[in-house]
Amino acid sequence: MRFRILGRDAGTRARWGEIFLGDGSFETPAFLPIGTRATVKTLTPWDLEEVGARILLANTYHLYLRPGHEVIRRLGGLHRFMSWRGAILTDSGGFQVWSLGDLSKILPDGVRFRSHLDGSEHLFTPELATEVQLALGSDILMALDLCTPYPCPRDEAARQMERTALWAERSRRTFLAGRVAERAQFGIVQGGIHRDLRSQCAVRLVSIGFDGYALGGLAVGEPVATRWEMVEQGDSDLPADSVRYLMGVGQPEDILEGVHRGMDLFDCVLPTRGARHGTVYTLAGRFSVKARTHAEDSRPLEAECDCRVCLTVSRAYVRHLFQVGEFLGPRLVSQHNIRTYLRLMEGIRLALREGRFAAYRERMLARLRGGSDEQSPRTGREEET
Amino acid sequence: MRFRILGRDAGTRARWGEIFLGDGSFETPAFLPIGTRATVKTLTPWDLEEVGARILLANTYHLYLRPGHEVIRRLGGLHRFMSWRGAILTDSGGFQVWSLGDLSKILPDGVRFRSHLDGSEHLFTPELATEVQLALGSDILMALDLCTPYPCPRDEAARQMERTALWAERSRRTFLAGRVAERAQFGIVQGGIHRDLRSQCAVRLVSIGFDGYALGGLAVGEPVATRWEMVEQGDSDLPADSVRYLMGVGQPEDILEGVHRGMDLFDCVLPTRGARHGTVYTLAGRFSVKARTHAEDSRPLEAECDCRVCLTVSRAYVRHLFQVGEFLGPRLVSQHNIRTYLRLMEGIRLALREGRFAAYRERMLARLRGGSDEQSPRTGREEET
Repeated sequence: MRFRILGRDAGTRARWGEIFLGDGSFETPAFLPIGTRATVKTLTPWDLEEVGARILLANTYHLYLRPGHEVIRRLGGLHRFMSWRGAILTDSGGFQVWSLGDLSKILPDGVRFRSHLDGSEHLFTPELATEVQLALGSDILMALDLCTPYPCPRDEAARQMERTALWAERSRRTFLAGRVAERAQFGIVQGGIHRDLRSQCAVRLVSIGFDGYALGGLAVGEPVATRWEMVEQGDSDLPADSVRYLMGVGQPEDILEGVHRGMDLFDCVLPTRGARHGTVYTLAGRFSVKARTHAEDSRPLEAECDCRVCLTVSRAYVRHLFQVGEFLGPRLVSQHNIRTYLRLMEGIRLALREGRFAAYRERMLARLRGGSDEQSPRTGREEET
Repeated sequence: MRFRILGRDAGTRARWGEIFLGDGSFETPAFLPIGTRATVKTLTPWDLEEVGARILLANTYHLYLRPGHEVIRRLGGLHRFMSWRGAILTDSGGFQVWSLGDLSKILPDGVRFRSHLDGSEHLFTPELATEVQLALGSDILMALDLCTPYPCPRDEAARQMERTALWAERSRRTFLAGRVAERAQFGIVQGGIHRDLRSQCAVRLVSIGFDGYALGGLAVGEPVATRWEMVEQGDSDLPADSVRYLMGVGQPEDILEGVHRGMDLFDCVLPTRGARHGTVYTLAGRFSVKARTHAEDSRPLEAECDCRVCLTVSRAYVRHLFQVGEFLGPRLVSQHNIRTYLRLMEGIRLALREGRFAAYRERMLARLRGGSDEQSPRTGREEET
């Protein structure tokens, strides 16, 4: 993997760049739709190409359990398995195992957990998490980490950061031993909401030397201002020419804020999860298409949108599908919502290219905040289940 | 509507024809995918165009209740509402109301029923059923009928046939009073499994004069041989140059048998309902993609199929989607299954055109019956709910 910064914003930390992988490249800032179980819920690979997706996120934990990484390896890897020609980043499974709560136990060597499916016991070590990702054939692998919850006592956050750094080293060693040319691996910065802990973590990851760095453990309930302080800390701790991935963030507004603070990659369940509940994302805010006001609304979901859904059907029709519980409703809104996120990224990149990102950000934040009729749900580095 | 017979098979009653509607036409024999609630489950209008659908079936009863025919009328009619450029046939609601059992009561004037949604009371008369379909803007409307169950005492079947014929007359009057050029209305032959009753019904419908005729009340549990006797009776009772629609039938094998007996139109829930349970229809029989044997099966659902699903993904991937409960599974199988039915119809029409239908039918029946690993489910004139 190579990362090239094509331009920097004059007034902010924002940058415009390009990531080169084996047989393709994509520009940053970029958004990764979530394809936890080798499918971005309700959508086909051709839908995703049509809306302009270039890279997806899949989850190591889920694919390890079903259908199993060896099955996917034998079938030619995850790209072939899900017929996806773009890039794939796999999360390490650390967050998912952490989410299991009582079903998991953190040991020095890794995380022992019981499958949420059949109760079988597994030990997820940094080595195994990396080997699974190598078997899947991901373009970008994530080192196994421990996600610090919020709130969390400082000494506990410190212990988890320490563990994350040690596991990062072991993950890296496994990756380098088994690597295939053009694959990349990112380390994940933890440390809760403690700037110094996060800094220490970043320094240690950089000294190990990854192909890119992620900020983890954010958007898990901490105050918004604190989140952005942590992101700014990460920006200053990490090499300026490295890729920075802000995990699990977030609303379109959050992505603008993240880009503003030097972040290059983003992922979030919101556009697809929201779609299943009828929440439509637009570049002028979000709304519920299930609302009675749309019962005879012949307008498209978003007048300015170029997706096939907006070019074809009305809000009234989509609302009807939700009213009668037809699956096509979530499918149509998923396709549109992902297109919205990707249009936002296109707008951000164009603004960066043309040296007007600060103005673009201001204008978009005002539009996004002004146009929403729904509260912002809490989100984070969640998978799509 | 105009119907032109383009050719007849020498050895059988099969015919090849073309139906002209307002601004388009399609060839027969044709299969109608079922779009009960203004959506063929899981599929978009562009998917349906892609697999070659030219006409869909929607259900008057369901659309009358939600979103309401007046809403659809105000939104420009059902074609615009669901963004469907092909033709639409709407079933009259008779079958659905009949299926409500204790929730419905047959009166001389129509069927009184309680909504399965909110318990509200409605009286579905032949006039109302026709007006609703006119409001929807269907290309082909169905007269309100009473579907005779199996088994059913002869005198009861006779009463229901009588009622069906009277209602057909009232339906026709309403249609002719409110008709729009190029719209068509079909009458439905009932009479249970009694040849003479079905003949009487057919004669009365023909004397009323419809644009086409349907055979109803079949595939509701009667012996297969009896069903085909009733179809043969219908073929001999109905004008040779009229369209004949065999409602709710059936498996691919049944369609070959129906064409063989002079039927032109078919509809069935099987390809879409089966898809939701992992049943894959192919021109060599059906199988369950959920079977363990497909866990690492890299073959497409059907090697000879030209649908995008078969050109893109493997059985192993589709099986995985069903294993993990991902909605994309039913969607992919629905798209393929409808393509299978439409490929069958294309094969039938080509064989008719080339004067080799009898041989085609023999060969396809052998392939279809030889290749299936599942029992044939009972079906009929069911909606997709």
